Amino acid sequence: MAGGVRGPQLGLGPVVWLCLATLLLGAALGGKVLVVPVDGSHWLSMRLLVRELAARGHDVVVLVPETSDGSPPSFRAPAGCETELYPVSYTQKDLDGTLGNITDDVFLRGRAPGVADAYANVRRLVAFTSVHVTGCESLLRNGELMGRLRRGGYDAVLTDPFLPCGAILAETLDAPAVFFLRGLPCGLDEAAAQCPAPPSYVPRFYVGANADAAAMTFTQRLRNAAMYAADAAICRVAYARFDALASAYLETDVTYQELIGRRGAVWLMRYDFAFLRPKPQMPNMVLIGGVNCAEPAPLAADLQEFVDGSGDDGFIVFTLGSMVDKMPADLTKVFLDAFRKIPQRVVWRYTGILPDDAPEKVKTMKWLPQNDLLAHPKAKLFLTHGGSHGIYEGICNAVPMVMMPLFGDQPDNVDLMVSRGVAARVSVFDVTTEKLLEALNKVLNDTSYKEKMVKLSAVHLDRPIKPLDLAVFWTEFVMRHKGADHLRPAAHDLNLIQYHSLDTICFLAAILMTISFLALKCCLFCTRKCGMRVTVKKKKE
Amino acid sequence: MAGGVRGPQLGLGPVVWLCLATLLLGAALGGKVLVVPVDGSHWLSMRLLVRELAARGHDVVVLVPETSDGSPPSFRAPAGCETELYPVSYTQKDLDGTLGNITDDVFLRGRAPGVADAYANVRRLVAFTSVHVTGCESLLRNGELMGRLRRGGYDAVLTDPFLPCGAILAETLDAPAVFFLRGLPCGLDEAAAQCPAPPSYVPRFYVGANADAAAMTFTQRLRNAAMYAADAAICRVAYARFDALASAYLETDVTYQELIGRRGAVWLMRYDFAFLRPKPQMPNMVLIGGVNCAEPAPLAADLQEFVDGSGDDGFIVFTLGSMVDKMPADLTKVFLDAFRKIPQRVVWRYTGILPDDAPEKVKTMKWLPQNDLLAHPKAKLFLTHGGSHGIYEGICNAVPMVMMPLFGDQPDNVDLMVSRGVAARVSVFDVTTEKLLEALNKVLNDTSYKEKMVKLSAVHLDRPIKPLDLAVFWTEFVMRHKGADHLRPAAHDLNLIQYHSLDTICFLAAILMTISFLALKCCLFCTRKCGMRVTVKKKKE
Repeated sequence: MAGGVRGPQLGLGPVVWLCLATLLLGAALGGKVLVVPVDGSHWLSMRLLVRELAARGHDVVVLVPETSDGSPPSFRAPAGCETELYPVSYTQKDLDGTLGNITDDVFLRGRAPGVADAYANVRRLVAFTSVHVTGCESLLRNGELMGRLRRGGYDAVLTDPFLPCGAILAETLDAPAVFFLRGLPCGLDEAAAQCPAPPSYVPRFYVGANADAAAMTFTQRLRNAAMYAADAAICRVAYARFDALASAYLETDVTYQELIGRRGAVWLMRYDFAFLRPKPQMPNMVLIGGVNCAEPAPLAADLQEFVDGSGDDGFIVFTLGSMVDKMPADLTKVFLDAFRKIPQRVVWRYTGILPDDAPEKVKTMKWLPQNDLLAHPKAKLFLTHGGSHGIYEGICNAVPMVMMPLFGDQPDNVDLMVSRGVAARVSVFDVTTEKLLEALNKVLNDTSYKEKMVKLSAVHLDRPIKPLDLAVFWTEFVMRHKGADHLRPAAHDLNLIQYHSLDTICFLAAILMTISFLALKCCLFCTRKCGMRVTVKKKKE
Repeated sequence: MAGGVRGPQLGLGPVVWLCLATLLLGAALGGKVLVVPVDGSHWLSMRLLVRELAARGHDVVVLVPETSDGSPPSFRAPAGCETELYPVSYTQKDLDGTLGNITDDVFLRGRAPGVADAYANVRRLVAFTSVHVTGCESLLRNGELMGRLRRGGYDAVLTDPFLPCGAILAETLDAPAVFFLRGLPCGLDEAAAQCPAPPSYVPRFYVGANADAAAMTFTQRLRNAAMYAADAAICRVAYARFDALASAYLETDVTYQELIGRRGAVWLMRYDFAFLRPKPQMPNMVLIGGVNCAEPAPLAADLQEFVDGSGDDGFIVFTLGSMVDKMPADLTKVFLDAFRKIPQRVVWRYTGILPDDAPEKVKTMKWLPQNDLLAHPKAKLFLTHGGSHGIYEGICNAVPMVMMPLFGDQPDNVDLMVSRGVAARVSVFDVTTEKLLEALNKVLNDTSYKEKMVKLSAVHLDRPIKPLDLAVFWTEFVMRHKGADHLRPAAHDLNLIQYHSLDTICFLAAILMTISFLALKCCLFCTRKCGMRVTVKKKKE
């Protein structure tokens, strides 16, 4: 670790040495971390940090609901970690039920989403998180497990604040929280971390303002400002159960935003500005975009043989993410027909069964070693939905993309990549073999996509320290110093009126108006006096 | 260097390889940096970066006005750098004349500064920078030198934007600028970098709001808001000559703020949050606080002997900064009398002659190896004015302080340290031997000062990468990528009204008001209709 106190030269007293020794000894012996993860793709990259922490000698305990089936990308605590399974009152089916129809919805709707779809999505999100809130309640009421956790003496809680359990546990155990996330719905992460996000140039998602690299137009800014206002209302609905759970369990009137604001010692943000547009940051926000681009591992023998044999034309990596593993037959046909007309081989994450006439050069797999495949020198193109993990794997391996966004943050992610000239877009709502072929051929044959991707990749990879090392460093920092108090802005102690200086501005305005009013009165009084004098004089005359 | 593109695995086309090779070759061969420094203490830490760049094989050219006498802390370009001397029309005496009376003013005033003094200080600052503007004009009109610079093919201009010449040169040479600074008067650095600084919790200097670690009170926020407003006016005066010079030379209507905003690829900020209160940052602001705490060098033999011989009581390091090397006889007596009554030896930066009865244990020197002395295990206390360099040397060596702020940012720097419990303050305006002794004894004997300083030092030094390495990395990044465009926020393309969303808010408000008005009209109309019908009905009845 860099830094470190130059010991023998300091001439410290015994008390000071004791304090310093405890600090360093604690760090050397390893700390105790409680990990409260979120299942699915969220876990994919947090897993790497958890593995590294265990490898560095920390005691790592991962809290996992019994429903998790352990198949990728679900929880499988890395070697060296302890897993604490806790019973929950819902089944995996309940959970899947809340989301399952998202994909049908996208594939069968056949048109771009409207306001009603956005509303349906919020409802779905609330239904999904509500099931998890139930799970969290089971955990918090599990007296035996909670007792064990309380006695655990954890130095930090590592969690994804997408679900509320980690932050509530951190508060209960009085341990500093390290948050690991890409972002939260409604920009709750920025609001909680007190991070300014001027609506004039920090585009919200779903506004379409990420499609243009230049500053937003008036209309875009208008839509963006309206979205900021709308978000405030949506957030109340989206986080209502989180607020209620936190208030009930902690027996104090607290919103989820306040809770994560005061508990979050460090926010490990899974983005950087090779991906997102530059925007203000807070000192305790640490950018670890690309943390999931680990060193590529060797491929399985049959897969290695398949991609090695793809010749000069190379191969395409195709996935629509962890939530989509099947698609309707007609859409499958669209893709297969397009693949027939290009010389590249295709490796496709697909759990359905392909029709018998599917070309042999298309290989389907239930789970792709995506990063390892993209790191292969013959990987020519990445056909993807635009999830943030895949995007970073594309960027760090410098593979240009054809993107078909489905839902959530994906349309904006795709806008960001397309505006950088490293990807082409196809719409899932009107995709045809011709349109898909056009996009594939454009990215495969127009060298500008590859060139721009190489440049973007160079910028992304040119950093003083690797994102995983940074994540490890700051988690350990929080353990060593029992938080990161020196990075906590005083803004946390202000209410909204105070924060926006509305009280001081009104007070200053009142003073200014009083002075102006008095000055005006004085002038009027003087003018009248003078006027009267003149009139009296004239009368006398 | 971390990162780096994983070459052979990428499977790139020839064009891409060529582009990548040029990039890496350029970096390997070393770039060309033009350094436009600011004399005095500003140069002390920038020098370390310049030396490191030269050591890493870059061509470094340092532009120095002929007046600089080369004595510390004045310019002495480090080994391996080329120095370009340019003639200027002012003399060192002209320059000293603009500032010389600051110290007299502080020592002889005998009371805390008032509004008139603040005004005098702004005038003095303007006079000082005006002389430099004249020097810059000499440089820019020096056809021969400018021709040479234009042909130089510089990859970056490294400069302190406290003076305007570096930024104007960067614009002229069309090279990205790397700014190296602690901050700019009136918060121009934040304004130019588009960094939000909410007046409700980011304290301006001279407001007294840094004295308290908690959130500001209403009165403090009021004063702070007023200072933000006042700064806007002061800045117009303070930077008027910079604006004029930039506009005249670049033949375009540009303010200095706009110029440094668009030219600054990276801002290397000489602070961190072990010193300042946490506040928002922009992605191209890199914190390198403590960059001046280099590895301590061995002391000169006589000095080593003097401090080694200080016994268990150790010694005190005493300096009032590079601008103050003498003081009035009565003040000197106050200090000497206090030093007589404590057992510590004293090493004092002082160019005057001490009275004959000065104790032998007080050693005066014209220039102190401050960091090397503070790193000595027997350094017990740092008696200082509170300049940012000294503060960081105190922090990184964990030496608690007694501070006597004189002018500029020093009173606020001292407030910050005192509020952290690592320093005691004495006022230069009413210092007596008793008051000084009380402060010295408090810090020497109350172990809490040392303990808190050790903790603060541990937090400051616990970082993933050393500040100098970070400064080198980002300077080289700018050279490698011809800037840092991916970190440039779109806010630069908005005017003040757009930035603050005043146009969109007004538009949305107008729509809301129109709808409300129409709704009200409709209601009134309906009510009237109903009312009329009721009246007609009643009449009929």
